Amino acid sequence: MSQPRFVVLGASGAGLKAAARARRLLPAADITVIDERELISFGSCGLPYYLSGEVQRLDALRETGWGAVRDADFFRTLQGLNVLTGLRIVAIDRDAKAVTVEHASDGSERTMLMYDKLVYALGAAPRVPAGCELGPCIMAATSPEAVRDLRYDLERRAVSSCIVVGGGIAGLEFTAALTDLWGCEATLVEATDRLLPAYLDPDMSRLVESALERRGVRVRTRLAVTAAETANGLAVVSTRGEQFVADRAALATGIRRRTRLAQAAGLAVGELGGLIVDANLRTSDPDILAVGDCIELVDHTSGEICCLALGSLSARQGRVAGDVLAGRDTTFPAVVGSVAVRILDQDVAATGLSETAALAAGLDPLVAWGCFGDRTQFHPERRLIYLKLVYEAETDRLLGLQAIGPGEVVKRVDVFAALLRQDADLADLLDTEFCYSPPFNAPSDPLQDLAAAVLNARETGLRQVSPFGQLDGRLVVDVRGRAEFAAGAPPSLPGAVNLPLEELRGRMGELPAGRPLLLVCAKGPRSFEAARILQHHGFHDLVYLAGGVEMRAGDRRSLTN
Amino acid sequence: MSQPRFVVLGASGAGLKAAARARRLLPAADITVIDERELISFGSCGLPYYLSGEVQRLDALRETGWGAVRDADFFRTLQGLNVLTGLRIVAIDRDAKAVTVEHASDGSERTMLMYDKLVYALGAAPRVPAGCELGPCIMAATSPEAVRDLRYDLERRAVSSCIVVGGGIAGLEFTAALTDLWGCEATLVEATDRLLPAYLDPDMSRLVESALERRGVRVRTRLAVTAAETANGLAVVSTRGEQFVADRAALATGIRRRTRLAQAAGLAVGELGGLIVDANLRTSDPDILAVGDCIELVDHTSGEICCLALGSLSARQGRVAGDVLAGRDTTFPAVVGSVAVRILDQDVAATGLSETAALAAGLDPLVAWGCFGDRTQFHPERRLIYLKLVYEAETDRLLGLQAIGPGEVVKRVDVFAALLRQDADLADLLDTEFCYSPPFNAPSDPLQDLAAAVLNARETGLRQVSPFGQLDGRLVVDVRGRAEFAAGAPPSLPGAVNLPLEELRGRMGELPAGRPLLLVCAKGPRSFEAARILQHHGFHDLVYLAGGVEMRAGDRRSLTN
Repeated sequence: MSQPRFVVLGASGAGLKAAARARRLLPAADITVIDERELISFGSCGLPYYLSGEVQRLDALRETGWGAVRDADFFRTLQGLNVLTGLRIVAIDRDAKAVTVEHASDGSERTMLMYDKLVYALGAAPRVPAGCELGPCIMAATSPEAVRDLRYDLERRAVSSCIVVGGGIAGLEFTAALTDLWGCEATLVEATDRLLPAYLDPDMSRLVESALERRGVRVRTRLAVTAAETANGLAVVSTRGEQFVADRAALATGIRRRTRLAQAAGLAVGELGGLIVDANLRTSDPDILAVGDCIELVDHTSGEICCLALGSLSARQGRVAGDVLAGRDTTFPAVVGSVAVRILDQDVAATGLSETAALAAGLDPLVAWGCFGDRTQFHPERRLIYLKLVYEAETDRLLGLQAIGPGEVVKRVDVFAALLRQDADLADLLDTEFCYSPPFNAPSDPLQDLAAAVLNARETGLRQVSPFGQLDGRLVVDVRGRAEFAAGAPPSLPGAVNLPLEELRGRMGELPAGRPLLLVCAKGPRSFEAARILQHHGFHDLVYLAGGVEMRAGDRRSLTN
Repeated sequence: MSQPRFVVLGASGAGLKAAARARRLLPAADITVIDERELISFGSCGLPYYLSGEVQRLDALRETGWGAVRDADFFRTLQGLNVLTGLRIVAIDRDAKAVTVEHASDGSERTMLMYDKLVYALGAAPRVPAGCELGPCIMAATSPEAVRDLRYDLERRAVSSCIVVGGGIAGLEFTAALTDLWGCEATLVEATDRLLPAYLDPDMSRLVESALERRGVRVRTRLAVTAAETANGLAVVSTRGEQFVADRAALATGIRRRTRLAQAAGLAVGELGGLIVDANLRTSDPDILAVGDCIELVDHTSGEICCLALGSLSARQGRVAGDVLAGRDTTFPAVVGSVAVRILDQDVAATGLSETAALAAGLDPLVAWGCFGDRTQFHPERRLIYLKLVYEAETDRLLGLQAIGPGEVVKRVDVFAALLRQDADLADLLDTEFCYSPPFNAPSDPLQDLAAAVLNARETGLRQVSPFGQLDGRLVVDVRGRAEFAAGAPPSLPGAVNLPLEELRGRMGELPAGRPLLLVCAKGPRSFEAARILQHHGFHDLVYLAGGVEMRAGDRRSLTN
């Protein structure tokens, strides 16, 4: 019996994983992996850590845990994969079941490779916006070569300012890397109204913005870049409103899915521009699978189509595709889309739908904010975390979580993602078990405290207001202790009167009858408690500040409004 | 309409939570909480961190996040709870629906408190084994007063050695606290064959033992203490085999559930000695609820009865009981039982069933071990974690996880616990989504790598062997690189020959035909890969070392056998 021939286009993580998995299942299969680049299996997610200096050598990003370099030879020797680099793919002929390639360097030696099954794993390339031109001072933030050159220039102090275009994950990591060790003067320019627009709502995004600004980064949103070019040895970035000049500019303006060859071969492309695949990752041609950043996925929570270029998902897709190549019926499920990014002294993580995304998907979301310590109040390693929970109005079904802070947020998001996948609701969150010991958590996890706060507020009819909202003429009653209030760390809201919770029962007569009240405290629980007490004593137009002045203070701008 | 009268016995976390929750739902209810102690709502889980010096003041353990002391007055003023301390509970009269109390100090003023509903939350007291007597040099490890005195003595260098009796969580935390800052010479004596016997299998427990021994702690297992007494100003601890003498001895010999009063009142007690409750936490008397350490629970994974004294569960039970007091049908579900403990430079966490527990429950468990970095191989904060996965043979259903290491283990255990609660299997684990970014994880989480390793091994028929097992005459082939092997960090197994994976295809002829082989590498993946290659070339009696020499080296004793 002749062995099947598999050809994988793209020696990225997902493509190589599919090939390696197929090799395990079918030891005698003929498996070829083709890539235009010489630098394959490169952990480009590690580039910001090379730029920052946390990772010393660029080659470390393509080494295994035991120090072997993952080059073509590595995959040939260890996994028996025929990895061919430096080959440009010219066309896919689905009728002949063949791929035409040529030498990338000079277009020579055009050859055809026959396949029984093809895996399309060409991923995506950096998107360069119209008007922008890569050049001596304008780089792609995700280019290994350009990052290597920039680090060299930073080390020899030849670069001291940089404009980063694009406030997605790549742009933020790049900005953080410039700022942290090198003290490079960074300007971050984003076209939409906020940073991380794909994952965060405008309110939580402001916390990220403030975290950058506190470290000296200049953040400019709502500025679409119209041109970026090298002029007189400097980078000049133009927008409709403003022009920026710096030693360098780095473009982190998203990705362009490399679907051209697939489209030319007539494979179906979806409304978001990605390849359409079924649950087995088969394209519209059942002999061609597709994996990685170039495919469209299904969002578990909304049921809608989405595109998510995440390494965690690509790795899993590679294994599924390998199974399918070997004739198994393994499926790749709908995704919740968990992401995390470290931005200087803050970690940011999110999963599921933001409020914005839930509304766009036609759902009816409700939200709650909270500020918590990430472990028991007495543990010295305790740090704050800010949470925004999104859930469905009618069913209490969990829809999404956004988490930011110097404290441990990724753990909460990972657990929440597992709950999302099982369509859990607020009550399920209360029943979730977290390891408790003082160095790791409080007896009740912040997620549970937040879910309980939502349910408590609903029972009492009390209403939270956003920690970032505008004041609306209510009398602000700050129920923190006298010393806390006086210290003003964080400061209270403008015009606040101080009436400590401990004294509230005795002094509530001092509050003007009939005046709408906004109760505030440090993180939220005391103001809720105060509202409950006042409600029980006949006050009725009451709201309390979710997340308290601590969360409000996380957003610099809210301090002055 | 007259308001309901609720009496809560025990001002512990669970009891106070039940009272506070009932108060929220029924603002006018008459709620009384009774405790014999003056020191209520005390975070005794924080005692080891006070002992170690990480927490400065003992009072910090009963303060809120904003510095208020949670004493009787606090609960009275803020939550409108009638908290009575210093009262001994004499008896519960279920017919009269009354509790008789008297002053704890002198037995005076015997009074009866009428209730409509009673919450039994007396928790547990430290168990003092037969032959042991608390005294000047013999303390209970969980006594706030004794810990305060010991810290004082440590600070003034009046104590330099201590025997800790009991290798459960409390004993380990106590031992770690003595060792870390104070450099106190510690001996840990445990009656069973291993540390943390309720949560860890013997093999994983050896990693904990080694972690303590590396820091100078003397660990002695299988030694039941027959006597502990003060003699000539020293603590003398006797076992059947050995006697230990030190400045102090601390008993961490488990708990005694305080069910005496409940039993005297005729409430049903289960086979494990805890109060039997239904899903609403009602005892055999529907007007009496019970919460906290004195009740029996249902283990979700095995379906068996269990007793788990965990603050995380008590907190949840308190809220459920408050709901039920207020007439709601809230239920407390079966538990998976997640625990974590920090032991010097290692974190230990576990959830679900150990292999031992699964066997005891009549299940048919299979296991897998693995050693992983907790984030991408190039990230400077990368640390090792050691995992043991327990799953069901026939169904692949996840049963439990044990995790140890200097790396991030709690996150993995928390996510695994969420999967356990949904009866997930190995394939579901592969589909779980974890946030990926270099500071937090690898593209594929260690749990997923471990699940994949199990499935890969099964497909090929290759068998892992325990990293801690005895060698059995196989030829050991170490497939690490030459430099790694020569450096011997960690050392290879006795008699190992070095044949680097990269050279295996070319040099496999050097291996003796027909000789059973044990393939080893640093963490496991390379030896599996090598076994697969050899298998494909006709070798058949092959096993590989799960977790590799790294995991084996985690257990000091395995290095010499």
